[in-house]
Amino acid sequence: MAKIYFATGNPHKIRELAAVLEPLGIELVPVRAEKLEIQSESLEEIARFAAQRLPEMDAPVAVEDAGLFVEKLRGFPGPYSSYVYKTLGLWGILRLLEGVDERRAYFESAIGVKTPRGRVLVFKGRVHGTITAEPRGKGGFGFDPIFVPEGATKTFAEMRLSEKNMNSHRARAARALAEWLLG
Amino acid sequence: MAKIYFATGNPHKIRELAAVLEPLGIELVPVRAEKLEIQSESLEEIARFAAQRLPEMDAPVAVEDAGLFVEKLRGFPGPYSSYVYKTLGLWGILRLLEGVDERRAYFESAIGVKTPRGRVLVFKGRVHGTITAEPRGKGGFGFDPIFVPEGATKTFAEMRLSEKNMNSHRARAARALAEWLLG
Repeated sequence: MAKIYFATGNPHKIRELAAVLEPLGIELVPVRAEKLEIQSESLEEIARFAAQRLPEMDAPVAVEDAGLFVEKLRGFPGPYSSYVYKTLGLWGILRLLEGVDERRAYFESAIGVKTPRGRVLVFKGRVHGTITAEPRGKGGFGFDPIFVPEGATKTFAEMRLSEKNMNSHRARAARALAEWLLG
Repeated sequence: MAKIYFATGNPHKIRELAAVLEPLGIELVPVRAEKLEIQSESLEEIARFAAQRLPEMDAPVAVEDAGLFVEKLRGFPGPYSSYVYKTLGLWGILRLLEGVDERRAYFESAIGVKTPRGRVLVFKGRVHGTITAEPRGKGGFGFDPIFVPEGATKTFAEMRLSEKNMNSHRARAARALAEWLLG
């Protein structure tokens, strides 16, 4: 069975990633490793930098970074989504979009991996959608209650995990990672 | 004459810092050096990390990081002020504070210095004040048009540089730096 270590303290992320990887025969092992995050507008750059600083282990070790990019807000909150979630919450994004018709946004996920030989790779996933007028649903985490992916009517927070993972940014990045691991 | 290098591409910062340091007999020399910024809620930590990665030179070399911390927004935009200024602008902060009476905020500046022998120091300055109802003034930069320091009626953007430097966060940090340089 293939194995990958994930350096994250976020149990939601572990759960979503495991639900994609384990059915494909990849064991996900959470590890405590310091994750150094730089300031950048590119999640890929943040994930690459963090992965470079991970220790070399007996199997690949990974970090994941994700963000919500709202078009009308020039990409805000983007790479600072977790800070903005913590300070302004869902309310902040809805407030900034009050009276705004153009509500397109996308979620992006970037998984940075360090191989046992010290090579660094980044896998990305993106899902386009729109910001709702108000929060809906109790599932998921972060900005999930205000995001409806294209082609759906439910927010990510209204979906079961299996449904969210059909086309979430994180699941797409995880599938790209799995292809490399198994390929 | 004492000398200090500053690694910043922001001409506003150079001008403000020079106006404090040069009358005290300290020459400020701008340098192009890559400034690595980490994600952290502490400006001190960001400045310390960036200073650690500066090259050792024949005189101290410094970086400066600053942010606006709005109490009612749990410190937002804080260390991400320049990103938020670029994406949401003054409008974003005013929108988030619409109808809010509690408008206290503070500006903080942290100057990280690396000595020729590789020691790292951080000097900080802070100024408390309030967020205005609308932008006023053309001077300064960033969030200056919406910030009135305690005891004043003008925004930082309505002040001449000498006036802003009487009690700005950046001038306070620069004076702490000067004390060390000359002490």
